[in-house]
Amino acid sequence: MKCLKLKEIGSLILVEMPIPETKPDEILIKVSHCALCRTDAKMWQQGHRDLLLPRVLGHEICGYCEETGKSYVVWPGKACGICQQCLRGAENLCSEMRILGFHKDGGFAEFVSVPKSGLIAVPEELPGYIACLAEPLACTLNALKQAKVSAGKKVLIYGGGPVGLLMALAVRTEGAEPLILEISSSKLRKSEAFRTRVGFEQGLECKMSGFDVVVNAAPSSDILSQGLSKLATGGCFCLFSGFTAKDSVSTAVINEIHYRQLQMVGAYGCTYNQMERALQILLDFREDIEFLIEKRIGLEQVPSVIAQVLSGQAMRFVVELDKRSRA
Amino acid sequence: MKCLKLKEIGSLILVEMPIPETKPDEILIKVSHCALCRTDAKMWQQGHRDLLLPRVLGHEICGYCEETGKSYVVWPGKACGICQQCLRGAENLCSEMRILGFHKDGGFAEFVSVPKSGLIAVPEELPGYIACLAEPLACTLNALKQAKVSAGKKVLIYGGGPVGLLMALAVRTEGAEPLILEISSSKLRKSEAFRTRVGFEQGLECKMSGFDVVVNAAPSSDILSQGLSKLATGGCFCLFSGFTAKDSVSTAVINEIHYRQLQMVGAYGCTYNQMERALQILLDFREDIEFLIEKRIGLEQVPSVIAQVLSGQAMRFVVELDKRSRA
Repeated sequence: MKCLKLKEIGSLILVEMPIPETKPDEILIKVSHCALCRTDAKMWQQGHRDLLLPRVLGHEICGYCEETGKSYVVWPGKACGICQQCLRGAENLCSEMRILGFHKDGGFAEFVSVPKSGLIAVPEELPGYIACLAEPLACTLNALKQAKVSAGKKVLIYGGGPVGLLMALAVRTEGAEPLILEISSSKLRKSEAFRTRVGFEQGLECKMSGFDVVVNAAPSSDILSQGLSKLATGGCFCLFSGFTAKDSVSTAVINEIHYRQLQMVGAYGCTYNQMERALQILLDFREDIEFLIEKRIGLEQVPSVIAQVLSGQAMRFVVELDKRSRA
Repeated sequence: MKCLKLKEIGSLILVEMPIPETKPDEILIKVSHCALCRTDAKMWQQGHRDLLLPRVLGHEICGYCEETGKSYVVWPGKACGICQQCLRGAENLCSEMRILGFHKDGGFAEFVSVPKSGLIAVPEELPGYIACLAEPLACTLNALKQAKVSAGKKVLIYGGGPVGLLMALAVRTEGAEPLILEISSSKLRKSEAFRTRVGFEQGLECKMSGFDVVVNAAPSSDILSQGLSKLATGGCFCLFSGFTAKDSVSTAVINEIHYRQLQMVGAYGCTYNQMERALQILLDFREDIEFLIEKRIGLEQVPSVIAQVLSGQAMRFVVELDKRSRA
């Protein structure tokens, strides 16, 4: 089969490999779509804490299973199920966690072997190139859970790319009030119709403050200083995107957390249940989010769009391996 | 009356002033004891966000009120009572907050005019030089509330000075398990008997990790990196002491919060109710905490011990203006 392998940092190449074998708790999936996440691009650029090389990347996977005759999205983790984190329903933090496209080969391939426990059936009416957004949307649901976002809360989101926009959608489904800050006016224009339909505000700047929650869907560490100043006393900054490496933050900024009894909470990945819920939200907003797909591309085109993904100027590229939603 | 005034940063001098006037919601207190906090020393050294100069410092106040014939400790704040923070019981975060020894003249004086709403009567059997520790102890109770410390939780405290030790006592009263890390072996020796009596561990280093909560009762920003690594996944770092100004923290350290879904919560000051509870704890452990008092000194001796307070090598100095607990 064809697949896209990150041999080493900076070297992503199309190779032929045997179809992967499946262990007893795994099942073979014929990949129909796999979205290209900024994290994939960052892995190419600088690696990642959880990345083992060489690796077939891709963790936003949708595909068809011959054995069951159904299409699925895949919760990309495999957790032990018996540790403290798994037992409290935070299996994304399992210390034994193995993630498709990080520790194990992922979805930029014709076939992927996935844990049976990670399968979530995709409704007939949801095309695969939309369904594969369930993973990033679920990650935003997880962020909102960590930040305890509930109805009526004012949430400021830094970054109006596809994930920031999915975050705004997630905030709305919680009955809370999102506002997106985005430095690119061309990106703001792209999401104008979505903004109206879903019901949130967005802009190049924000003169308001007193937000209950601030979330970063962009990696600049400057957002910490700006974001903390936008919080109401006692408010919560959700560190959703890791900050750009090798930067630093002044203690004067961090001391704001002390003086105003702010909170900072981390969010990383998502749970199986959050992906199930995300899939339902995608179904409900199926047509409104079509614009989040920048372009459907072939495996061989991925290396050529990496720079565009890193620049933050594009919406989501989705690798399409099989145009039919059903095989 | 005699009082100790911070004229400007670095200049703390003994002066004569008229006895302060009282507004209708205030009452005159004859100060018996006022403890010297590291924050007072930092104000002398570098100022403070909430400090208005010139100022009579001192916010850990115990004294006698002629009008009522009783001794009191004083919750040093004055809050509006009607804002969102006050209404949710976090009056220490009131935006209209005025703090004795910060915004208004404090307790390093023979007399101080205090809001009636801040008075908490001191039981007969508690001497004033111990009672004035109610404020710092209450601040530790507030920190534990922000970090949601409850029975059975493992709490690592950086710093074994008087406030770190009060923190350990507070942790024990919550039924949780404190461990103090302190870099000075001479300080560790001083608290040995207290450790045995109250029941906690302490040491120069700690090879364990997996703590539910880490609190800093010391200002070095290195504690953030060390402390985050000591937390269990999903654990909470409580920023109790502001970090030394003009330092910086690497984004790699902050990204640990992202990857392991850690939390960071700030704690600043205390509420009236927390001071009431602190006073009761002081009463229960009255004899065990005697050693936290480094020395009782006169107003005129304060400037000469500031350097010792800043060095972190001393226990608590208490200014004694009236040796009798009762006037």
